Amino acid sequence: MNGPEIEALVRLLAKLPGLGPRSARRAALQLLKKKDLLLRPLATALTQAADAIVSCRVCGNLDTRDPCSVCADDRRDRALVCVVEDVADLWAIERTMGFKGVYHVLGGTLSALDGRGPQDLNVASLVERCARGDVRELVLALNATVDGQTTSHYIADRLKDSPVAITRLAHGVPVGGELDYLDDGTLLAALKARRALS
Amino acid sequence: MNGPEIEALVRLLAKLPGLGPRSARRAALQLLKKKDLLLRPLATALTQAADAIVSCRVCGNLDTRDPCSVCADDRRDRALVCVVEDVADLWAIERTMGFKGVYHVLGGTLSALDGRGPQDLNVASLVERCARGDVRELVLALNATVDGQTTSHYIADRLKDSPVAITRLAHGVPVGGELDYLDDGTLLAALKARRALS
Repeated sequence: MNGPEIEALVRLLAKLPGLGPRSARRAALQLLKKKDLLLRPLATALTQAADAIVSCRVCGNLDTRDPCSVCADDRRDRALVCVVEDVADLWAIERTMGFKGVYHVLGGTLSALDGRGPQDLNVASLVERCARGDVRELVLALNATVDGQTTSHYIADRLKDSPVAITRLAHGVPVGGELDYLDDGTLLAALKARRALS
Repeated sequence: MNGPEIEALVRLLAKLPGLGPRSARRAALQLLKKKDLLLRPLATALTQAADAIVSCRVCGNLDTRDPCSVCADDRRDRALVCVVEDVADLWAIERTMGFKGVYHVLGGTLSALDGRGPQDLNVASLVERCARGDVRELVLALNATVDGQTTSHYIADRLKDSPVAITRLAHGVPVGGELDYLDDGTLLAALKARRALS
């Protein structure tokens, strides 16, 4: 019905997370209607990003420079390393603006179901990073899922003979959350980890 | 925090319908991760679409040719013209594969609130198209909103001295819909427009 250029565009847009076939068509139409305001700038931005983006050889972050701007930042504490599953998690922690260390992106979690073993993750480079002796604390910021927790325990086990302190994110009531809507596991964790009211 | 190329990409993606700032960031990350499978093909598809797409001078459809593939199709009944608000509505009707006439895209509806008058829509070209005498029936397929209905009545009024038959889409129970969940207005319309069970 439409030209092949439109159909190709819709098919590619539908592969983005959050866009299905229907919303991809709507997005394509919006792009075509705003050719100079949206379509051409987006095409340019994509091309520039494709040319500029590299994976950081130290931590695995995606940035326009290698080492990435986080690893290259002199004001950061390089002895404090936060281990995350994915670049998206790194960006999420950066948005809090409360972490002043550096990162290590695993690139996934161990998963028996999906057949992902330690060799599929950046675990070897993490162990090596710790073995060099310049890491003081490793914050395991993996998802609080079964696979995430399994991976946390695996990493802790691999590093049990190293002097690196290993910590994990706190479990508890989300800020702004209501107890009545909270699952039992989280509520129990929050109760066990209760702290003095300062 | 990220390079300017990533931020520019996120900002542009967030302008697409269906993507907010958060999902745009997720989409950008997905694109960056699949550089060769997704990012570069999308950049190419956008550039090709920007170069190829034109607005049809007969009906206002967006296509890679002018007149568009609908207007240029010899098997279609050119005396049967469907009036739609937007190119998205044209595509929606085309997807039903049940309409064998041609289209006229108004480019919006009359709206007192948004200050859109007849001069802002492609009404003049529609009246002219009807005056040329080659239109037999005009199907008003505008949204069943106040603005859509106002526009329908305005067009019918403009063409009241012309011999063109003016019809509108049927109102009724959506196929697969349950009466209990239907609003009263639609149910009443469906009741009034009841038809013999064939």
